[in-house]
Amino acid sequence: MRTAAQNAELALLLEVAGTPKPGNVDREREYEDLRFEHFLAGAVGAQEGLRMAGRVDGPPVGEAFEQAIAGMRDQRGGNTQFGALLLLAPLVRAAADGNLTRSGASDVAESTTVTDAAGFYRAFEHVAVSVEDPPADMDDLDVRRGSDAVPALHARDLSLYDVMDRSADRDGVAREWTGGFERSFGAAARMEALAGPMTERVARVFLELLADEPDTFVAINHDEATAERVSERARAALEGDEDPDALAEELVDRGINPGTTADITAAGLFVALEGGLAI
Amino acid sequence: MRTAAQNAELALLLEVAGTPKPGNVDREREYEDLRFEHFLAGAVGAQEGLRMAGRVDGPPVGEAFEQAIAGMRDQRGGNTQFGALLLLAPLVRAAADGNLTRSGASDVAESTTVTDAAGFYRAFEHVAVSVEDPPADMDDLDVRRGSDAVPALHARDLSLYDVMDRSADRDGVAREWTGGFERSFGAAARMEALAGPMTERVARVFLELLADEPDTFVAINHDEATAERVSERARAALEGDEDPDALAEELVDRGINPGTTADITAAGLFVALEGGLAI
Repeated sequence: MRTAAQNAELALLLEVAGTPKPGNVDREREYEDLRFEHFLAGAVGAQEGLRMAGRVDGPPVGEAFEQAIAGMRDQRGGNTQFGALLLLAPLVRAAADGNLTRSGASDVAESTTVTDAAGFYRAFEHVAVSVEDPPADMDDLDVRRGSDAVPALHARDLSLYDVMDRSADRDGVAREWTGGFERSFGAAARMEALAGPMTERVARVFLELLADEPDTFVAINHDEATAERVSERARAALEGDEDPDALAEELVDRGINPGTTADITAAGLFVALEGGLAI
Repeated sequence: MRTAAQNAELALLLEVAGTPKPGNVDREREYEDLRFEHFLAGAVGAQEGLRMAGRVDGPPVGEAFEQAIAGMRDQRGGNTQFGALLLLAPLVRAAADGNLTRSGASDVAESTTVTDAAGFYRAFEHVAVSVEDPPADMDDLDVRRGSDAVPALHARDLSLYDVMDRSADRDGVAREWTGGFERSFGAAARMEALAGPMTERVARVFLELLADEPDTFVAINHDEATAERVSERARAALEGDEDPDALAEELVDRGINPGTTADITAAGLFVALEGGLAI
């Protein structure tokens, strides 16, 4: 039987294998400098961090996350699974605690401390992540400062949950952390309800999530209007008014990459696998 | 930096991602009951066995192999990576010993004992593997007997190397074990010499190996003539006289699956990754 850490790694692999996943790397599509193989190496590299998250008596989840990112980064594609691992770290710990429920995952999130926040900030030293400029009064907490921001975290006594709370209005991953992982668990339920090969279910759930809410990674890298338009197109694809494969090609060509939606899909896969979903 | 066990797992993942790989599951092709996702789960499941192989002071490689197969089997596709893991177990141990060379790998193979052979036989209890009937005087050593054959192994004092030696004339994986892993190291050198995305290099090396020698898995499941004809077609594909994608489709349609060639490709990938090949 796979461990929680193994199911998390498998979730990363199944997520990237799902096709078509408009705008994202999948089995049949990749960017020239961000290829399918980088995601495979990223998932394998994250293993040690995921194992740390999977130990009840393991280090704080923020430190496990940092280790996962350091390992993930051992490939040339850059940031492959940062957001997915940020969701998986608390979910894997909740599974290790024997309580992989929305409230169990929230307990893990809410019990984080400044130490977890420091791990999260250090993770940014391993990889370039697209983020927005922080508000003026939070410049000393700009994640791009990496460990240089740790004194400010201590000075303000901010836990990782607090950090996520401050980004929840504009970042879909942070919103999962503070909102009881609602969409991740919803995705898991859909994954279980659908039939057929997992890579097809993944594609369907991805499209449903994308149709349901504008992708915050697209909003950050492009703008809100683009993110909203992509969700409209996803709805059209679900309704049969748009060919999902053509949409996938088009978004990859335009470099529009709904990464947050992929992160939540991976988190949903993990919850489903832990729930007994057979591959 | 990835451990040897992680590189072995990544090799399994990169192997199955390579496309087109005529007759085998790849990123773009699968069988209805043996899908890409089964290989992903197989690779993740093999992790614990690979870790055992990767410990200098770990259990005998035959036992690590059995563990890898037991974990690999935790998916619905059946036998995904039996042969590849049989090659990887001694190669990972040689890497752990700091001597991943042809002679280092041969040392591992030659130092196996009856205990390793017993692990190998027990592995057959976890999964259905296509094998030929044994010669009449070896019926008590039929691998399909699983652990029931262990007393016969002890009675005849057969190491895993001895068992491989008895199959080397008809099984390409066994021939690697007794022939100093010649084709695996050759594949690694080719993998390093080629340029471009790994999934394309994998496809090229697979085709070269297939062109070079008839696949013994095809010979066992079909016949020698079929295996020879497939190698001819692979040569034609390399020479531009046959479209490799069309050949891939055709062989999948006909259920002709050059599995041994894929096993050696995976072994070559591992050796190349350990040699520093960057993804």
